[in-house]
Amino acid sequence: MIIVMKPKAAEENIQAVIRYITENGLQTHLSKGEEVTIIGVVGDKTRLASENLNSFKDVDRIVPVTESYKLANRKFHPDPTSVKVGNTYIGPGNLTVMAGPCAVESEEQLLTIARAVKKSGATILRGGAYKPRTSPYSFQGLEEEGLKYMQTAKAETGLSTICEVVSQEAIDAAVKYVDMIQIGARNMQNFYLLKEAGRSGLPVLLKRGLSATIDEWLNAAEYIIAEGNPNVVLCERGIRTFETATRNTLDISAVAVMKEKTHLPIIVDPSHSTGVYKYVPPMAKAAVACDADGLMIEVHNDPAHALSDGPQSLTFEKFDKLCNELKPFAGLVGRTFKE
Amino acid sequence: MIIVMKPKAAEENIQAVIRYITENGLQTHLSKGEEVTIIGVVGDKTRLASENLNSFKDVDRIVPVTESYKLANRKFHPDPTSVKVGNTYIGPGNLTVMAGPCAVESEEQLLTIARAVKKSGATILRGGAYKPRTSPYSFQGLEEEGLKYMQTAKAETGLSTICEVVSQEAIDAAVKYVDMIQIGARNMQNFYLLKEAGRSGLPVLLKRGLSATIDEWLNAAEYIIAEGNPNVVLCERGIRTFETATRNTLDISAVAVMKEKTHLPIIVDPSHSTGVYKYVPPMAKAAVACDADGLMIEVHNDPAHALSDGPQSLTFEKFDKLCNELKPFAGLVGRTFKE
Amino acid sequence: MIIVMKPKAAEENIQAVIRYITENGLQTHLSKGEEVTIIGVVGDKTRLASENLNSFKDVDRIVPVTESYKLANRKFHPDPTSVKVGNTYIGPGNLTVMAGPCAVESEEQLLTIARAVKKSGATILRGGAYKPRTSPYSFQGLEEEGLKYMQTAKAETGLSTICEVVSQEAIDAAVKYVDMIQIGARNMQNFYLLKEAGRSGLPVLLKRGLSATIDEWLNAAEYIIAEGNPNVVLCERGIRTFETATRNTLDISAVAVMKEKTHLPIIVDPSHSTGVYKYVPPMAKAAVACDADGLMIEVHNDPAHALSDGPQSLTFEKFDKLCNELKPFAGLVGRTFKE
Amino acid sequence: MIIVMKPKAAEENIQAVIRYITENGLQTHLSKGEEVTIIGVVGDKTRLASENLNSFKDVDRIVPVTESYKLANRKFHPDPTSVKVGNTYIGPGNLTVMAGPCAVESEEQLLTIARAVKKSGATILRGGAYKPRTSPYSFQGLEEEGLKYMQTAKAETGLSTICEVVSQEAIDAAVKYVDMIQIGARNMQNFYLLKEAGRSGLPVLLKRGLSATIDEWLNAAEYIIAEGNPNVVLCERGIRTFETATRNTLDISAVAVMKEKTHLPIIVDPSHSTGVYKYVPPMAKAAVACDADGLMIEVHNDPAHALSDGPQSLTFEKFDKLCNELKPFAGLVGRTFKE
Repeated sequence: MIIVMKPKAAEENIQAVIRYITENGLQTHLSKGEEVTIIGVVGDKTRLASENLNSFKDVDRIVPVTESYKLANRKFHPDPTSVKVGNTYIGPGNLTVMAGPCAVESEEQLLTIARAVKKSGATILRGGAYKPRTSPYSFQGLEEEGLKYMQTAKAETGLSTICEVVSQEAIDAAVKYVDMIQIGARNMQNFYLLKEAGRSGLPVLLKRGLSATIDEWLNAAEYIIAEGNPNVVLCERGIRTFETATRNTLDISAVAVMKEKTHLPIIVDPSHSTGVYKYVPPMAKAAVACDADGLMIEVHNDPAHALSDGPQSLTFEKFDKLCNELKPFAGLVGRTFKE
Repeated sequence: MIIVMKPKAAEENIQAVIRYITENGLQTHLSKGEEVTIIGVVGDKTRLASENLNSFKDVDRIVPVTESYKLANRKFHPDPTSVKVGNTYIGPGNLTVMAGPCAVESEEQLLTIARAVKKSGATILRGGAYKPRTSPYSFQGLEEEGLKYMQTAKAETGLSTICEVVSQEAIDAAVKYVDMIQIGARNMQNFYLLKEAGRSGLPVLLKRGLSATIDEWLNAAEYIIAEGNPNVVLCERGIRTFETATRNTLDISAVAVMKEKTHLPIIVDPSHSTGVYKYVPPMAKAAVACDADGLMIEVHNDPAHALSDGPQSLTFEKFDKLCNELKPFAGLVGRTFKE
Repeated sequence: MIIVMKPKAAEENIQAVIRYITENGLQTHLSKGEEVTIIGVVGDKTRLASENLNSFKDVDRIVPVTESYKLANRKFHPDPTSVKVGNTYIGPGNLTVMAGPCAVESEEQLLTIARAVKKSGATILRGGAYKPRTSPYSFQGLEEEGLKYMQTAKAETGLSTICEVVSQEAIDAAVKYVDMIQIGARNMQNFYLLKEAGRSGLPVLLKRGLSATIDEWLNAAEYIIAEGNPNVVLCERGIRTFETATRNTLDISAVAVMKEKTHLPIIVDPSHSTGVYKYVPPMAKAAVACDADGLMIEVHNDPAHALSDGPQSLTFEKFDKLCNELKPFAGLVGRTFKE
Repeated sequence: MIIVMKPKAAEENIQAVIRYITENGLQTHLSKGEEVTIIGVVGDKTRLASENLNSFKDVDRIVPVTESYKLANRKFHPDPTSVKVGNTYIGPGNLTVMAGPCAVESEEQLLTIARAVKKSGATILRGGAYKPRTSPYSFQGLEEEGLKYMQTAKAETGLSTICEVVSQEAIDAAVKYVDMIQIGARNMQNFYLLKEAGRSGLPVLLKRGLSATIDEWLNAAEYIIAEGNPNVVLCERGIRTFETATRNTLDISAVAVMKEKTHLPIIVDPSHSTGVYKYVPPMAKAAVACDADGLMIEVHNDPAHALSDGPQSLTFEKFDKLCNELKPFAGLVGRTFKE
């Protein structure tokens, strides 16, 4: 951390900053320039409520020089992580396609969809049983009953399974029935839930919050890993911007940025990021081309009658066509898909 | 709700939309123009997963003509609501100032601050005992112990009290010790927590999410009210934009918009929205001038050594000066403060 | 400027950075910490294309410690500037209200409006003769003819006048007829136009771009001042965010930030920032309360038939009521209005 | 266009709206529902300042049902447009790679770069001679001298050429020396410049404004086409969001949206959108995979000493590697590159 003092900072104010830092068990390194004086801080910064220094006299700004996340940081873990999910894994060499309905609606619906997506190449079945909905009057999910259907679908098709969790109860239920849990965008900074997910023992798919920075997202992952659970996969699902032609704005460069900043795998959700089924195939190809580790795609047997997110769901036919088109793209980036 | 069909929509596609709507127990009203055909929908829209219509052929767009929130909607409740909090209230005729530390750090610290803010004119003491922090390595709060200090501070000063809650456990504890609970920005769409807050029986301060629209914010309030708890107060605390000169961007016009759209009181938090203590006084005056029902301001006995959010906290002296300056502004908008 | 090197940067890479800086005639100041090495730069930074250093090996980041604008910077010009406009001024002690139609539509319309706003307390008449419109099929303004009407209105009422310019031709015409020119939001980074405005000799109202940061806005002002024209007034008119309840989002804290960063006056446009006439009065009061130097408000004799921006225009009656309400607010912040 | 009236709108207010519309030579179509009354408008809407209707009593909102741009609209021009640029073209079947330095610095520099990018597969040479820079103290370009070097480079290599224009003078010069002109992001709504570009006779590359919506961007294209110049190519170059890990946020889905909304070609600039050379190759691949018509990439012989945008420029070696990697991606989407 560096503290930049204001031009012509008074000596006593410089000393006050130095005193505060050393009182907290850290060392300083002073550098006086013509225009400004800079104070470098050496030692374990977690011992310091460093933002406070902003309220010291003559302090111009605080510049962090190291990231606050450590366990998720590629600087300290240079090799990319592979995360095992049921009988498959997400990571280098593999293109993982997760597919399924936004919401589990019935056992029959889920089985029909599971069979179709498996046939097209998906290896993980997604399906929401606890639905966070903007309005309290929208369909809220089948809850534990839905998770049981996921278990049945797994038994029949051999697909691994993932389900979103929204509470401690949901996590407790998920542990019994599915292979991976998902923290949704709206809960990305629900730190209580992150800790519980960390303690669950299951691999966690962490979706990016609607207005979360890359840095906040990795700090959220750090909450999970800090509980002893290193099996975190990131999912870019679009951020909120001024543009309304798409439901959200897919921040595709986040894939490239994450490859540099973290060792955790990252997948892309072209369904929620665009909100329009027509835009899903081109965005899926873009994600594979820039080396995402996987995709999460909404597929529905009858999008027009889906209880949630119909407009962004692919039909079986469209999903199958897309998977066939994705195969050569996966090959170009050195990933296996549909072998 | 209106469904706008594409130019030259095929008759069979128009009929398919009409059939879907009537199958769901609603009626349609057809209007064929030269360029476009429009289908109006009459009846209870909550029976319809209306977004699905987007995936019907030749549908151009769906236009909602009524808001999805009802209980929070001023159209149906024209009179402004007053919310009782301990021995004071938030609403018409009153300017409520909530003040206190970002985080409760010790009993002595809290009592010192409580006495000071009471003297300056605050009627509600704020203090965080469960802190949502971006990094898992930052101070996370004193939890239940902190709430007990809030109770002590109330007993001594007569101030009403408010504390943020982040989980079911926190709500259970808060019910025992404080007068009002707060749902923070990061949990605004933690629908599970909203429902629990609704069932708590305590009045709820609902902070706006970092990237929540006015509409989503009112739908979040609807979650609480729908559980039988009408005592909801909104709090504008800044939204996330591209501008970095302030911590967030205070959306001051949200005050005016909310006065039109809802009967619920709205207060402004100039501390979190700016992140800089120097900007707190001018923003507090702006909020009062445009008729906010109150303010939530961070005050600390020693900002430079605060365990959280020091840079945006006012000293006792600055807070007292601000309260004195606010008094005539309150008078100009017909509100009582410091009588 | 500070260059932060990556942890474990190679000595040769550190030396390469130092060499580049010294080759450009600047000096360095090296500071090696346990974790990172920091290189301070001393001297005239304008000689350095400093961003290039980002592409040097082992460079982690470049941290500017001084702003790129000098002439607009309060650090070097601590006293607030007053800008003379015709027979009035914008600056300390004065609350300047500019009012008038979005677009000049006819001589009679303009005179009618000029008389009304003068009576209510405005001292500067605004009126657009060159209109930047999103669609080429919208009304584009009366151009020079409109400026002549402005001159007539000034002659009759004694009001000072301001008009937006969009090209060199428009500036040439404006110099002949009005007292102040305005650079609109969409041209805030039209650097060619900024330079021409700087050379015009007229005071310039510089509106903030839709997504301009505070820093970019002040750099735009610097372009004008660097041409020898110190008479620049800033105008906050709302920024673009995700929120759609208002046309733009009024960044009210920009007023407080600007008071700290620059000596130039700053006014607020509550009409364009909200886009809704009902929200104009509360936002105008908020702006005055937080010490803005003035307001720019759209007033129209018949908003329902205005050729541009009708929905955000105040009627004469509403404008007069607002001015009366603003007077005591101006008094509270030590400004004169309607004497 | 549809006018939605408020619930329980008074009959006289409904009639006032109808009267206003018919007075403007248009027809109405009334539809009274249980909750709301809707008024459809039939005829040429350009005759109506429709936004004014927002200020009529009991009007709830105005819903446009057709886009304001016509000439750029795919609805009326279903076949994709090919734009000829010198001796190449941008459009279906072709992957066009434009490459070159951000700024033309010298004749030798430009020739060196031109030879290298030609060899790797670029068909259009880019190079800035008029640079819009945030600070007036940054390098502003060689102006006409730079354009002459572009002409020389074209003569020697056979590459077509493109250069940004910022003023009438720049356009006049560009017409003499280059094959295509570029309107930069900061001038996207400089309507004066758009019209002049339309009259220039040269094909125009229209970059998206930093906070321009898809709709505004197409309306800007409409300005150019309306002057009789149909040769417009769109360029997505990143939008401004809250995320700071990249210089801007590449809105990759804009490619898919534009393919649906317009017949104009669209290319992607991965250099300005990310601002970091390391992210350029993955983003270039993503753009090709989702069917962009081309790429604009900054290449420099010595990025560390570039006078502008060094950190985002590729070296010759990196650019050559990228072009080789792009070839098979182009093949997968049915485009020719490097034949």
